[in-house]
Amino acid sequence: MAARKARKKNAFYAQSGGVTAVINASACGVIETARAHRDRIGTVYAGRNGIIGALTEELIDTGKESAAAIRALRSTPSGAFGSCRYKLKSLDTNRREYERLIEVFRAHDIAWFFYNGGGDSADTCFKMSQLSEAMGYPLQAIHVPKTVDNDLPITDCCPGFGSVAKYVAVSALEASFDVRSMARTSTKVFVLEVMGRHAGWIAAAGGLIEAYGIPVAILFPEIEFDEKKFIARVDTLVKEHGYCTVVVSEGAHHVDGTFLAEQGSRDAFGHAQLGGAAPVVANMIKNALGHKFHWAVADYLQRAARHIASKTDVKQAYDLGRRAVELALKGANAVMPTIERVSDVPYRWRIGVADLADVANVEKFMPRDFISEDGFGITEKCHRYLAPLIAGEDYPAYRNGLPVYATLKNVAVPKKLADFAMK
Amino acid sequence: MAARKARKKNAFYAQSGGVTAVINASACGVIETARAHRDRIGTVYAGRNGIIGALTEELIDTGKESAAAIRALRSTPSGAFGSCRYKLKSLDTNRREYERLIEVFRAHDIAWFFYNGGGDSADTCFKMSQLSEAMGYPLQAIHVPKTVDNDLPITDCCPGFGSVAKYVAVSALEASFDVRSMARTSTKVFVLEVMGRHAGWIAAAGGLIEAYGIPVAILFPEIEFDEKKFIARVDTLVKEHGYCTVVVSEGAHHVDGTFLAEQGSRDAFGHAQLGGAAPVVANMIKNALGHKFHWAVADYLQRAARHIASKTDVKQAYDLGRRAVELALKGANAVMPTIERVSDVPYRWRIGVADLADVANVEKFMPRDFISEDGFGITEKCHRYLAPLIAGEDYPAYRNGLPVYATLKNVAVPKKLADFAMK
Repeated sequence: MAARKARKKNAFYAQSGGVTAVINASACGVIETARAHRDRIGTVYAGRNGIIGALTEELIDTGKESAAAIRALRSTPSGAFGSCRYKLKSLDTNRREYERLIEVFRAHDIAWFFYNGGGDSADTCFKMSQLSEAMGYPLQAIHVPKTVDNDLPITDCCPGFGSVAKYVAVSALEASFDVRSMARTSTKVFVLEVMGRHAGWIAAAGGLIEAYGIPVAILFPEIEFDEKKFIARVDTLVKEHGYCTVVVSEGAHHVDGTFLAEQGSRDAFGHAQLGGAAPVVANMIKNALGHKFHWAVADYLQRAARHIASKTDVKQAYDLGRRAVELALKGANAVMPTIERVSDVPYRWRIGVADLADVANVEKFMPRDFISEDGFGITEKCHRYLAPLIAGEDYPAYRNGLPVYATLKNVAVPKKLADFAMK
Repeated sequence: MAARKARKKNAFYAQSGGVTAVINASACGVIETARAHRDRIGTVYAGRNGIIGALTEELIDTGKESAAAIRALRSTPSGAFGSCRYKLKSLDTNRREYERLIEVFRAHDIAWFFYNGGGDSADTCFKMSQLSEAMGYPLQAIHVPKTVDNDLPITDCCPGFGSVAKYVAVSALEASFDVRSMARTSTKVFVLEVMGRHAGWIAAAGGLIEAYGIPVAILFPEIEFDEKKFIARVDTLVKEHGYCTVVVSEGAHHVDGTFLAEQGSRDAFGHAQLGGAAPVVANMIKNALGHKFHWAVADYLQRAARHIASKTDVKQAYDLGRRAVELALKGANAVMPTIERVSDVPYRWRIGVADLADVANVEKFMPRDFISEDGFGITEKCHRYLAPLIAGEDYPAYRNGLPVYATLKNVAVPKKLADFAMK
């Protein structure tokens, strides 16, 4: 009996990069689907703090969690097992890490590798998918897409984006109502800074409130900042409406490539850590037009805002996790399940599959025809694309006025190997 | 018939100062209750942009709005008729304005004055309540409390506060889950800046998430900032938990009284316009402890966040508007309906009445025994006070993924008087 049990292989699941309001919904999809196939999949081991948990053999036994606890992940934001910003180097450059990963996987009988992340993580997952051939260890690596930035190629959209888009649209709408109320004697311009280092998808969501008659000017990373044109646009909007709302992407930049605001520090991937474009833009408007302003920087609040998650997004996140396991069971390797849009109205979608080789390190920017000619708004085409992604509400349960979010036990799998020194 | 109709007096209603997620719920309470007493109250005229609308005779005929439109105010944030920051000077200093107000009220047969605002507005309302005696025009002035700052005296809490407190607690909880996920290799400290120029009530709401085991350090305006002690506290929390969340009030200040961040500009009441304490605090931590940080400034998003309003708060806002009209019909003048807390658990409250003379220009700060001994947290007593105020959800309806918020027709009442030059 023990011998037969041992033959059933285990799965590894890890969360990578910036977390989202729905990455745990994907985790829920992976784990629930694996549990539904107990005949073929042993246990899902989660990496504590992402791939680092695999390197350090800090594995979490998700089998110790109740069905209710796993179900609760569907409505819990953030990364339940911990995430990390850690990019594996190439096999040539750092063979030591890959050998360690295989050592850990072999020790824990892991045959499936599910990696839940964005573009950098897709690259890591792709490298893992090549190990089977390169190092003779049989491993199937499936990438589960996740990024608020919505910048992965091939898939129509990325889990995490719909919810952050909904947060931005709802927040911008509410703040715009506020400014409109105050504009007679006080604030006339409200500036909201949102995420999106290179791609303006999140900022574009601010454009959805134009349908409410709200005057909005958007600053996209895809459009080089032109101060004169921008000030003229704000001036026109305030003259016409009495107020206006500006949505500025953290990645908005000057012609020479410098960001409107840069804090100087860099993250583990070497990307500049941004923040603070909103006060820069607000003061620019004040100096040019004299308008009283208010500004907000949403930062983590936007990507963590499970309380206002998009129902569409939650479902897609879950279904992509589920499909990743189904693909694995069919023998797939080096792939990523994707969202394929069938129609805009009514919104219909299905799940497709992309080769990871086509996904890794490719960034999808806003097409030029999604941005209005003057560069400060979204087009009808963009509106049609975005609208269904924020559709539907998927409220968490509340207790004592606060959402009931899950904190798992995260029971450690006993280590079998010697320690590994992280570099 | 026409003569008898004219004898039915009208009411004036205006929104004043910073708007909130539920000030329109109070407007709804005022207007629906007035409509329920059509035998005694003619029309509710709203001031366009607050008291300025009364001075300029820009009155809005709320009688032109459907019952459904008025009902929709209950779930619409911001000020539906426009607000303003405009403080009436004393009768001695600016008799001209008071004479104009009486001229407008007389022209439109207004006998009731409902003013929906905070401390500065209570002062204005009190002045109006004295006009009857001072200038021989019969007017009953009732104040409807409103302020996210929760700093009015006598009333146990202020409409607008419960919802902003819920927003802050939910947002801080979600962002804390996010930081906890990222802390192994990336962000260890998240700093959230919230409103509260002089009183720390809003910042205190961040302390509610300690019940979730989240490590939080709060910077109150009531406690003079001590950098050494603060850094030591953050250091301890990060060492114990691996991460921490800081909630900083915009009003947090140094021993010499200067704010942690001040933008230099001042609003119409002469108050310094604040913003930007979060990046200051975040960089302070980075310099002292080296931790990677993220920061957010919630600004208008917090006070406009009707999508996550407290059900308790919405109900209290409505009921205070309703009671204001009932008090007026009983002949009251120079009063403000208040919330009286009967018990914490289960939470029970009723509506009381305060004399405006006791309310105007008095600010209620956090009692010292609501703040933990070290100055960076809330006490159990404070938790008991705050918890019921954020209880319950009161979701707006949604269409196409966005809340259905009301924009009224705001039909102008025909002017009867010559223009009035605002100074």
